[in-house]
Amino acid sequence: VTTFAEALAALQPVDREAAASAAEHHTRLTKPRGSLGRIEDLGVRLAAIAGTSPPPLPAPAAVAVFAGDHGVHARGVSPWPQEVTAQMVANFAGGGAAINVLARAAGASVTVVDVGVAADLPPGLGVVDRKVRRGTADLAAAPAMTPAECERALDAGAAVAADLVATGARCLVTGDMGIANTTPSAALIAALTGRPVAEVTGRGTGVDDTTLALKVGVLEAALHRHGEGREPLDVLASLGGLEHAALVGFIVGGAAAGLPVVIDGVIAASALLVAARLSPDVADRCIAGHRSVEPGAAAVLADLGLAAVLDLDLRLGEGTGAVLALPLIESAALVLAEMATFDGAGVTVKEG
Amino acid sequence: VTTFAEALAALQPVDREAAASAAEHHTRLTKPRGSLGRIEDLGVRLAAIAGTSPPPLPAPAAVAVFAGDHGVHARGVSPWPQEVTAQMVANFAGGGAAINVLARAAGASVTVVDVGVAADLPPGLGVVDRKVRRGTADLAAAPAMTPAECERALDAGAAVAADLVATGARCLVTGDMGIANTTPSAALIAALTGRPVAEVTGRGTGVDDTTLALKVGVLEAALHRHGEGREPLDVLASLGGLEHAALVGFIVGGAAAGLPVVIDGVIAASALLVAARLSPDVADRCIAGHRSVEPGAAAVLADLGLAAVLDLDLRLGEGTGAVLALPLIESAALVLAEMATFDGAGVTVKEG
Repeated sequence: VTTFAEALAALQPVDREAAASAAEHHTRLTKPRGSLGRIEDLGVRLAAIAGTSPPPLPAPAAVAVFAGDHGVHARGVSPWPQEVTAQMVANFAGGGAAINVLARAAGASVTVVDVGVAADLPPGLGVVDRKVRRGTADLAAAPAMTPAECERALDAGAAVAADLVATGARCLVTGDMGIANTTPSAALIAALTGRPVAEVTGRGTGVDDTTLALKVGVLEAALHRHGEGREPLDVLASLGGLEHAALVGFIVGGAAAGLPVVIDGVIAASALLVAARLSPDVADRCIAGHRSVEPGAAAVLADLGLAAVLDLDLRLGEGTGAVLALPLIESAALVLAEMATFDGAGVTVKEG
Repeated sequence: VTTFAEALAALQPVDREAAASAAEHHTRLTKPRGSLGRIEDLGVRLAAIAGTSPPPLPAPAAVAVFAGDHGVHARGVSPWPQEVTAQMVANFAGGGAAINVLARAAGASVTVVDVGVAADLPPGLGVVDRKVRRGTADLAAAPAMTPAECERALDAGAAVAADLVATGARCLVTGDMGIANTTPSAALIAALTGRPVAEVTGRGTGVDDTTLALKVGVLEAALHRHGEGREPLDVLASLGGLEHAALVGFIVGGAAAGLPVVIDGVIAASALLVAARLSPDVADRCIAGHRSVEPGAAAVLADLGLAAVLDLDLRLGEGTGAVLALPLIESAALVLAEMATFDGAGVTVKEG
């Protein structure tokens, strides 16, 4: 099994020659130049990631949903009881959650991984047990986890990525579950971008004005406790969640294996930001599935120069927005692989 | 075979009770209220169109690509030779165009219909022959077609819709091919919205500044010749293309049959606008697949209050943007049909 450190060391820059070849091939296909817009950009990106043009079909895709709880929940940052994390894990296992429905529609598998649920899950659910601890500590009062715990979660994510690649996945999709997990996401984004907490904090699953103000206050306390100028993995252990750390490992693991990694909402975006601060080669290997309603997600996309495929006012998480983008990503590869050329189809190229 | 007039008379308002039932069901599903954003709106819309909640899966989908040529091409409004229309029809028949690749990926069929190509197509291509005439007249100098020709194209579109419904299609998708056809589209949109020509005219498949200025001048001449205050079908015959008229028939035919009709770019949008001026019940039964780069398409969406599913800088036509939206539309139906409820999954609802 690949560790996180091994995956990080194995990361390579994307292939600029394959990207140029894909861009050039697009000009030969029977359509006006650039007329498929962002689908063309996606095809070029897939070629750069795969190191070949046309890029291979990024399918089948595999979603990993990392679940964890958060000590900061006790501060009242979410209207949902903490027990909902475990209940939703059971719902994922039963196939009835949004991510299950949408992944089935997209032909993607769903693997649920417990990295930090604050409850004993019933046996036989089919959930991968990589539990590091039963929820994090309250990040407003103390580091959320120890460096050793953080490393275990990073390794769990990298191992899940390696397992999915070994069983045939050709595209990885980030998923998450953890009541209150938009709070550590905002903390990571504020700490790593330097933006004010209020600017990167959203309503999560739907908090009212009072709770939003409380959430911002808790986050400011957390950032104050944490201090400034620390290394990315110190920031992650201090302010992140166990599912965030696992997602960092998963993203780096998938990227190191040469697969496109499709990023969901603000939780995955905050994990990608940590990974991007560790390596310049990660963000180029990821695709932002959608632009979440959460302001922190948009801040990360802007910071890393990523364009989202979809913009549908989504704020559910679980990997849903990323899975919804899969057919478009697959179509981008198919256009390069299957469309006729002007020469081949006997179509006249435009004048001038 | 249903005529256009019969289809228009058969149009019904969408079912507000089914929509309300779908919206209420969304609140029982295991996700925060509204967290699937526009996917939830799409599900409600599908229920309203189908008249039942959960709505049936809008699949299989069927794309009809209506092809025609345009007398106005002789004015130099496009850099592409007119012969490319017939060449691209052959490319569709051979399965090598973008619409073929994207429809295969989405599990949709493609039917190509000649309603006005200015060439004799080789026999045996598998193209449906509904040719009304070999291209329209130059709309800047004379009515593009006679009322009788327009009616034949309208009937052709309605008949194709009826045929596709009869063979099992559960969702119709608008497609088009016709070199220079963004020019009549802009003419229809300017005439029916009252907006200035310059505001609704775009670069089509990629014209330069000089050609864009020429195109605006030709369109202003056409609008001047046409005059003001005419009935929608008079506007269509005077300024439209044969594929535009066929698309009006196709949209109305699909809507009358109770199927969702997915609208592609500016050509289909201009046809939808004609249909919407004929009946208040058409637009509610359509889904805007994407927001085209063409300004006229955005003008129609704004006029009719339609939100596009995708916004990917597409400007190809053929039905490509609409087909790319199909997996999202199908997912919207599946969410309502397949997701677990809070009660059923034993998940606690949020406090307050």
